[in-house]
Amino acid sequence: MRLARPLETLIDELVKLPTIGPKTAQRLALYILKLPEEEAKQLANAIIEARETVHPCPECGYLTDRSICLICTDNTRDESTICVAEETSDIIAIEKTGFRGKYFVLNKSFHLMDDNKLEEIKVAPLKKFLSNGKVKEVVLALNPDINGDILSRYIASLASDYGVVVTRLAHGLPVGGDIEFADELTLRRAMEGRKQF
Amino acid sequence: MRLARPLETLIDELVKLPTIGPKTAQRLALYILKLPEEEAKQLANAIIEARETVHPCPECGYLTDRSICLICTDNTRDESTICVAEETSDIIAIEKTGFRGKYFVLNKSFHLMDDNKLEEIKVAPLKKFLSNGKVKEVVLALNPDINGDILSRYIASLASDYGVVVTRLAHGLPVGGDIEFADELTLRRAMEGRKQF
Repeated sequence: MRLARPLETLIDELVKLPTIGPKTAQRLALYILKLPEEEAKQLANAIIEARETVHPCPECGYLTDRSICLICTDNTRDESTICVAEETSDIIAIEKTGFRGKYFVLNKSFHLMDDNKLEEIKVAPLKKFLSNGKVKEVVLALNPDINGDILSRYIASLASDYGVVVTRLAHGLPVGGDIEFADELTLRRAMEGRKQF
Repeated sequence: MRLARPLETLIDELVKLPTIGPKTAQRLALYILKLPEEEAKQLANAIIEARETVHPCPECGYLTDRSICLICTDNTRDESTICVAEETSDIIAIEKTGFRGKYFVLNKSFHLMDDNKLEEIKVAPLKKFLSNGKVKEVVLALNPDINGDILSRYIASLASDYGVVVTRLAHGLPVGGDIEFADELTLRRAMEGRKQF
């Protein structure tokens, strides 16, 4: 099928995005062609502006368009508790729990970071955080996989050097989840972590 | 939750697109922030270029970036059979059945077209098609809904003025289904089994 070349190019670009398959890319591209020109430009400009201006906060790694992020400069937050997470999307989810401490985001897959240089790049700002004398607890909120376990152990050993208590999010049954359908490891963790009723 | 403003703007723009909910928009936006700057620009430019250069062909309505589209200028195609469809996405699907006639696309929802002026705008090029003396059959490939039925009747009466045979795709399309999403075989059967309207 011969599509107009700029239409094909747009579909090719859209299909590179996560969760967007060829059918959805085609649908989105045809939709974009029908947008008023102003709205198509707004979308394109939003992409460019976000990409150019948003970067990890140099102190905590949370994505921001300022020199220091909104969370770091928020004096109403509890500086004694630092939640360490892998991605800004994790912070967005954790924030909804009402957590009012501060954060440290590893931005593992952020383009500025090279996975092989994880320690070199992120240890410096994390050490700065831990050494400021205000942090009393580090809450590890890393994904429960091998990678998350390795990172957790590494950060825990770092924190213990500074005499900081290290906790991590409880593993167990998801609320509303059926015991019958829980995977074995989750159920084992739930059993190990059982609490007095 | 306080997100960086350009990130919020990008999420707001993405969520306007069809099939993109708030969660997907957030995921796409965070992905775009991690793209190399060059790739983010390619995506933005593809949007602008497609929107600026792609338009309905003045002869048949198929989306093109040329003055006359690739299908209209293809001399190997059968000029005696014209398939009338609502959208370019329908043509993309029909083309996969091996249909080798020409097309007329109504572009019902295209931004250049005003639904209330459907007749005024589209009758002229359709009449030009029908009056060229080459067209022997009009295949109606409009969605099997009330709107499609009304359009079919209207085009059939127009075609009969020119002594052109009118057929339509066989029923065989699932009721309530969109042509765009029909599987290739179903659509091929519908094309083969087209009946006089």
